[in-house]
Amino acid sequence: MAITAEIITIGEEILSGQTLDSNSAFIGRKLADAGIEVRYKVSVGDKHEDIVEAITIARERSAVTICTGGLGPTRDDITKNAICAAFDCKLSLRDDILDRIKKRYEERQQKMPAFVQSMALQPLGSELIPNSVGTAPGIVFQEKDRYFASVPGVPSEMQAMVVDHIVPYLMRREDRRHIVLRKIRTIGIFESHIAEVLEAIEPDGKDLRLAYLPSYKGVDLRVTSLADSHEAAVKAAEELTQKIVNRLSEHVYTIGDESMAELVAGMLKKRGETLATAESCTGGLIAKTITDMPGSSDYFLGGAVPYSNEAKMNLLKVDEQLLVDHGAVSAEVAEALATNAREVFGADYAISTTGIAGPSGGTNEKPVGLVFIGYADSAGSTSRRLDLHGTRERIRERSVLVALDLLRVKLAAK
Amino acid sequence: MAITAEIITIGEEILSGQTLDSNSAFIGRKLADAGIEVRYKVSVGDKHEDIVEAITIARERSAVTICTGGLGPTRDDITKNAICAAFDCKLSLRDDILDRIKKRYEERQQKMPAFVQSMALQPLGSELIPNSVGTAPGIVFQEKDRYFASVPGVPSEMQAMVVDHIVPYLMRREDRRHIVLRKIRTIGIFESHIAEVLEAIEPDGKDLRLAYLPSYKGVDLRVTSLADSHEAAVKAAEELTQKIVNRLSEHVYTIGDESMAELVAGMLKKRGETLATAESCTGGLIAKTITDMPGSSDYFLGGAVPYSNEAKMNLLKVDEQLLVDHGAVSAEVAEALATNAREVFGADYAISTTGIAGPSGGTNEKPVGLVFIGYADSAGSTSRRLDLHGTRERIRERSVLVALDLLRVKLAAK
Repeated sequence: MAITAEIITIGEEILSGQTLDSNSAFIGRKLADAGIEVRYKVSVGDKHEDIVEAITIARERSAVTICTGGLGPTRDDITKNAICAAFDCKLSLRDDILDRIKKRYEERQQKMPAFVQSMALQPLGSELIPNSVGTAPGIVFQEKDRYFASVPGVPSEMQAMVVDHIVPYLMRREDRRHIVLRKIRTIGIFESHIAEVLEAIEPDGKDLRLAYLPSYKGVDLRVTSLADSHEAAVKAAEELTQKIVNRLSEHVYTIGDESMAELVAGMLKKRGETLATAESCTGGLIAKTITDMPGSSDYFLGGAVPYSNEAKMNLLKVDEQLLVDHGAVSAEVAEALATNAREVFGADYAISTTGIAGPSGGTNEKPVGLVFIGYADSAGSTSRRLDLHGTRERIRERSVLVALDLLRVKLAAK
Repeated sequence: MAITAEIITIGEEILSGQTLDSNSAFIGRKLADAGIEVRYKVSVGDKHEDIVEAITIARERSAVTICTGGLGPTRDDITKNAICAAFDCKLSLRDDILDRIKKRYEERQQKMPAFVQSMALQPLGSELIPNSVGTAPGIVFQEKDRYFASVPGVPSEMQAMVVDHIVPYLMRREDRRHIVLRKIRTIGIFESHIAEVLEAIEPDGKDLRLAYLPSYKGVDLRVTSLADSHEAAVKAAEELTQKIVNRLSEHVYTIGDESMAELVAGMLKKRGETLATAESCTGGLIAKTITDMPGSSDYFLGGAVPYSNEAKMNLLKVDEQLLVDHGAVSAEVAEALATNAREVFGADYAISTTGIAGPSGGTNEKPVGLVFIGYADSAGSTSRRLDLHGTRERIRERSVLVALDLLRVKLAAK
């Protein structure tokens, strides 16, 4: 039988929605990669009885439980007491850990606050996971067929413990089923249309599953394949993926987690060519998206964000008459921005945006959501008109995606 | 007694960490604002028995349950059957809903796929929540002292139902306790130091709670105050907040949810002054952060992203000799970028960044994490040196924050 895992996150800030639960997403990805299926995710606040209840339920139904949050130095740390209540054990002070913590403070020439001492308390019967990044160690209970780990909520500390200790240990256990995921990313086709096209090849939903992850950026499809061996899981996942790609061909832009930006970056790097950007309505979001990637200076020469009309004229030499004749939001200005950015930066390609991201600023003639994407290369320039809907954020993100997609299509055709 | 709520999100993509659970964060914020404390958050996959179990547990322990995900048109929709199993009821076809769905497809001149019909199925005993944004209606069971709602997972549809229907209904119920939150945002002080400074005024953790939300952007503090009346909850929250602000004064940049960017935007707008940016290592992230805000064209004239040295010279007229003498990553170049951006864009203020965001590109003399922030106004220019640690993303985001903070401090001093 497949090992199923449960993730518990502790923190009022997750319940009240002040913080997105990215810790459990990280753990979920790492477990999935290791062939362990996460079946439940539970968040509770800093209440003793709720943490105890969550741990107790998890121990009953899940072979593996990973708990995160609440092992930090501050007063909202009550996780350890809750663990002791759930496992019916006491805390004992580890002098060696306390010495190490004291040393860390000494090295930084800081006084150790008294309550930091609680980080050196260990539930009896547990083992500790060393913290290579911070101070508080993690806690592990290994019972017969049951594994329970509790790690701090600080992302870097949690990540190091999960990657260096928890996942390698679980990987060594033999009795797990293998899970393989494949992601197929599409653009320009609705979820319901995809469902129609794929109706004949829908998997049974048991060992082979197909999930639709629609967003305004496009519809991602996820194939989940479960089998007793890694090879069998891969084989079934690959077969279904190939069938899907065959049916949706023109709409699939990548298989895998690769983003549109990563895809385009790879194409540029391979060709040894360079890119520049000129962004009005996206206000730097294309440049930001590209420079999010390490090594982007290899192919990205830079960008301009000529938000005002004056900036369009001064920084990117857009002809004033063009702005008067067509308005800043026009195919003509989009192409001029791309053409001139390409020249100013000395790049092989340039892409540009100009539009009305809203929520205000729209007119009958040029409503919110009207965006022009410009593209220029040595052969000339072209543009694409978009009539988008939704929030400012959506309009901007969608514009970035289409601009990068336009570049992708042009590069692929060369 | 306070009403406690539970949120259930359905979707394999949340368990496997492919998608951040922003839906439940949204619901959590809206419930907290309405005085309803979220006590549990649970995510399960598309498995019938897991959904049934989650709903059954929630009905037992929580007065209010809001379930999201799985009411869409595609095959992974099994939520409705699970709800019927948990509530022991049958599905019946609502002809009026089916007609409305058909009409929507006709209006768009599309053929309605046959399986869309399932969206018109209503669990007997439930009421429907109209979907003002999309097609699938929400489902509500109102039992004695128990409220259960299930809404689609598409964010815009979920949000409209929560804001327009669920929260107003729950607000009208009389028996809830009131919850008031206050957020205090700090910069430049460690969590453990804050804990020391606040030790004497730590609340008891029952009706008045203090939580630390540390991140690399600074430490946010959240005061949670529970009381039988809104006024009493506000009073206790305000008193504690004021004590905290008095003790941390120079480190508090705002009370509330306002971001550093929103704070600075408000100051600029109030003064009727303008800003330009010149970003090397942050690659457009400052401009993006500013233009994320609607109406930013009122005070933001534009930005440059001179990623290559050539772009620094051509676009922003940085003297070649300055680059040779000090290197691109230097206080001198940071100040030149700010000074020249201010001129090129004709802005009152300019801020700039130049640094090594990593993970590669560092040297002994100029390691990864070395960043210079530049600032210029009519009186001249200045800069700030940062020695940052962590990932590329952290180094970039931290640089943006410090650049905006430098502007904030300068504006506040004027």
